[in-house]
Amino acid sequence: MTKVLFATSNPHKLKEANDVGKGFGIEFEQLKVPYPELRDEDVGKVAEDGAKHVYSIVKKPLVVDDTGLYIDALNGFPGPYSAYVFKKIGCPGIIRLMNCIADRGAVFVSAVGYCDGKELKVFRGECKGTIIEEMRGPQVFGYDPIFLPDGEKKTFAEDDIIKDRVSHRRKSFEAFCRWYLTKNPGK
Amino acid sequence: MTKVLFATSNPHKLKEANDVGKGFGIEFEQLKVPYPELRDEDVGKVAEDGAKHVYSIVKKPLVVDDTGLYIDALNGFPGPYSAYVFKKIGCPGIIRLMNCIADRGAVFVSAVGYCDGKELKVFRGECKGTIIEEMRGPQVFGYDPIFLPDGEKKTFAEDDIIKDRVSHRRKSFEAFCRWYLTKNPGK
Repeated sequence: MTKVLFATSNPHKLKEANDVGKGFGIEFEQLKVPYPELRDEDVGKVAEDGAKHVYSIVKKPLVVDDTGLYIDALNGFPGPYSAYVFKKIGCPGIIRLMNCIADRGAVFVSAVGYCDGKELKVFRGECKGTIIEEMRGPQVFGYDPIFLPDGEKKTFAEDDIIKDRVSHRRKSFEAFCRWYLTKNPGK
Repeated sequence: MTKVLFATSNPHKLKEANDVGKGFGIEFEQLKVPYPELRDEDVGKVAEDGAKHVYSIVKKPLVVDDTGLYIDALNGFPGPYSAYVFKKIGCPGIIRLMNCIADRGAVFVSAVGYCDGKELKVFRGECKGTIIEEMRGPQVFGYDPIFLPDGEKKTFAEDDIIKDRVSHRRKSFEAFCRWYLTKNPGK
């Protein structure tokens, strides 16, 4: 297994990254280095800046992930502040905000930032879906109980296997792993 | 009049600062230098970091202001992200979030950060009040139409004079002006 450092404090993100990585022979190793997050509406820029910052501390190649839930009817809220907003108002708050709103469209965006001191790259993944009117499935990780991916009948919280197959993070980490193996064919 | 630079893009903040400053013989001059804002739950830290950052660019003494509306029942949301949240969901979003919530308490906090290369200081001002159930007064500046300061019958949007007298920004800028004049008695 090729090992790649992943700067995150979030065990759910680490597990999801490794679920993807194992198909590529890549193991993501957790690196607990907190870093200041840029205020920008684009999670790609936040991830890029984060990767650069953590690299400047550890001087080893690494990835970070920044993820946002962008709700159409709320002008993209909570976007890059999804984690903060979740901590404060949770899924019930989003449900109240979406009360009586017909347009339920939303997109989850994950951006993996990679930095090795020479290369600084961002890999994005998206998953479109709808915000449902009540929570379905256990409250384990973020907005999963209220996000129904397009074409599916179960929320991310109700079905891990669906999430693993279609999620934004699946796509961003796949894009990273594919690129990384091309760049390091001997490893 | 003593002149002090105020790094802000917000004309309302500039006017409010000058309404305070004139009582002290201080005129705040607008400086349009955008700066990255720290992600921190304390607007005081955001203001301190901002003042330091802008000073590093302009090399002149200056102030910045960071303000947050902290709503008790929402665990302090939207706090330091008040401007972002306002842009996305506005007063109507906060009203929906507070639907059927009995505890309406909230506090506006303004923090003025000052930096002159030697001194780095923060001056805070608070104004307690309640979030009302519908907007009252014109939508001119932020959450003013839904914030009723304690002991008053009109929202900040309905009555400029009340706002000028009791607001968080009145208090933070008064604290700054008092300190600044003590430090620069000859000016």
